Amino acid sequence: MSDRTVFFISDGTGITAETFGNAILAQFDFKPRRVRLPFVDTPDKAHQAVRQINHTAELEGKKPLVFTTLVDRQAVNILQEGCKGMLMDMFGTFVQPLEQELSIKSHHRVGRFSDVSKSREYHDRIEAINYSLAHDDGQSNRDLTGADVILVGVSRSGKTPTSLYLAMQHGLKAANYPLIPEDFDRRQLPPALVPHKKKLFGLTIAPERLSEIRSERRPGSRYADLQNCRMEVSDAEAMMRRAGIRWLSTTTKSIEEIATTILQEVRPERLSY
Amino acid sequence: MSDRTVFFISDGTGITAETFGNAILAQFDFKPRRVRLPFVDTPDKAHQAVRQINHTAELEGKKPLVFTTLVDRQAVNILQEGCKGMLMDMFGTFVQPLEQELSIKSHHRVGRFSDVSKSREYHDRIEAINYSLAHDDGQSNRDLTGADVILVGVSRSGKTPTSLYLAMQHGLKAANYPLIPEDFDRRQLPPALVPHKKKLFGLTIAPERLSEIRSERRPGSRYADLQNCRMEVSDAEAMMRRAGIRWLSTTTKSIEEIATTILQEVRPERLSY
Repeated sequence: MSDRTVFFISDGTGITAETFGNAILAQFDFKPRRVRLPFVDTPDKAHQAVRQINHTAELEGKKPLVFTTLVDRQAVNILQEGCKGMLMDMFGTFVQPLEQELSIKSHHRVGRFSDVSKSREYHDRIEAINYSLAHDDGQSNRDLTGADVILVGVSRSGKTPTSLYLAMQHGLKAANYPLIPEDFDRRQLPPALVPHKKKLFGLTIAPERLSEIRSERRPGSRYADLQNCRMEVSDAEAMMRRAGIRWLSTTTKSIEEIATTILQEVRPERLSY
Repeated sequence: MSDRTVFFISDGTGITAETFGNAILAQFDFKPRRVRLPFVDTPDKAHQAVRQINHTAELEGKKPLVFTTLVDRQAVNILQEGCKGMLMDMFGTFVQPLEQELSIKSHHRVGRFSDVSKSREYHDRIEAINYSLAHDDGQSNRDLTGADVILVGVSRSGKTPTSLYLAMQHGLKAANYPLIPEDFDRRQLPPALVPHKKKLFGLTIAPERLSEIRSERRPGSRYADLQNCRMEVSDAEAMMRRAGIRWLSTTTKSIEEIATTILQEVRPERLSY
């Protein structure tokens, strides 16, 4: 742990400030202390932030790093004038040049989430989360016509977290459906999926990794046994190949990376924007 | 729809590039066409991006806006030299001044998700998602001791999407538990929750909004009836007040805003960083 502190300051949730700051910090091999200051939406709170930053600067004898996505220029000015940190001001840096290029003024409005109860997009996102939950792990065949994408793969190949991520971040109705030994015996896709072949996307995984993951849940079981995992994975891949389903391996991929690839491949028409 | 295109270019998933670009674009009242170009991780792909941008510039007769989080300087140089768009380069802008302040060199490494199968943090996040799913809607009382936070509230007050968001984005084991008419009749918290009072956080919602949401699921039902919603909400708030549980109203808040407030209030020790 370094003796340097990083502040993330925002008038809203601070999600953008953290994404921005963390992406930049990831370029450096050091582990600062992190402090989030969300909802800094009055001059009072901006002054309070300045006091906190300057107190830290004194204690540590080093400039704190301050990532801000403050929209309100008055708040930014308070920070600029008073604070002893190194200010990285995302809006100040990019918004003004954009105003010139676009020949329109920015409106300095705070937050992208205001009044969500009236937003169609937000409503659709919540609907998508509910849909994906109801169609997790083949729980329901009903209404698969409504799915934007249906993930298939053996148990623990990453279908559930990926479906939820696609719903939560991209507003996609993402169902998921397990491929199980009975399907391999019949050498056929689960019948419920056949009418929806265009929407299917397969996830596979290295048998060694699968066995590791399954062992955490059911150590010593046939389910987790490496030999069994090898057979299931090879059967599942053969089935996806025969059926002409696009697929990828999740072995070393994060749900974000899996989701991005699926979006590129499936290109569902109804994207969140 | 404007006749101006915005590109988001990244060597990874493009999530940071989009967060960065969309936050800035949200300051302007115009709706550009959006194009994501993730996984731009070779000079070839950078040249391809340049061609695509320049083709668009020609078609539209306007400079495309290009938000990049490219880490690889060679790729950035290809864009800078060749492309006719307005380049907003997040890393180039902030990383160099930081190198000076920190007196360390950035490593220009791509992506924050490399080799997830070996990352403890990623593993904990997936565990948290599984935990939150298994403890959705009071499904299981087992292992509530392991929860970082337990959300309570009437049905459809926003507990499920918020729990999943806390798990997915912050790696928190977030259980959720419904408050139902039987609890109000007994005028007591569900017994399973009593030992975990410190971890409880309440969600409430305006009865009018609740009735709207419930009506989408079960139109004309007693469940969705405004009078019934009024009673449930008032009973739930009274119960939370008596039990000394912190709570907030979700009526006009996004899951991101709700989650941020919960994190500030609960300050669970085990945060994702």
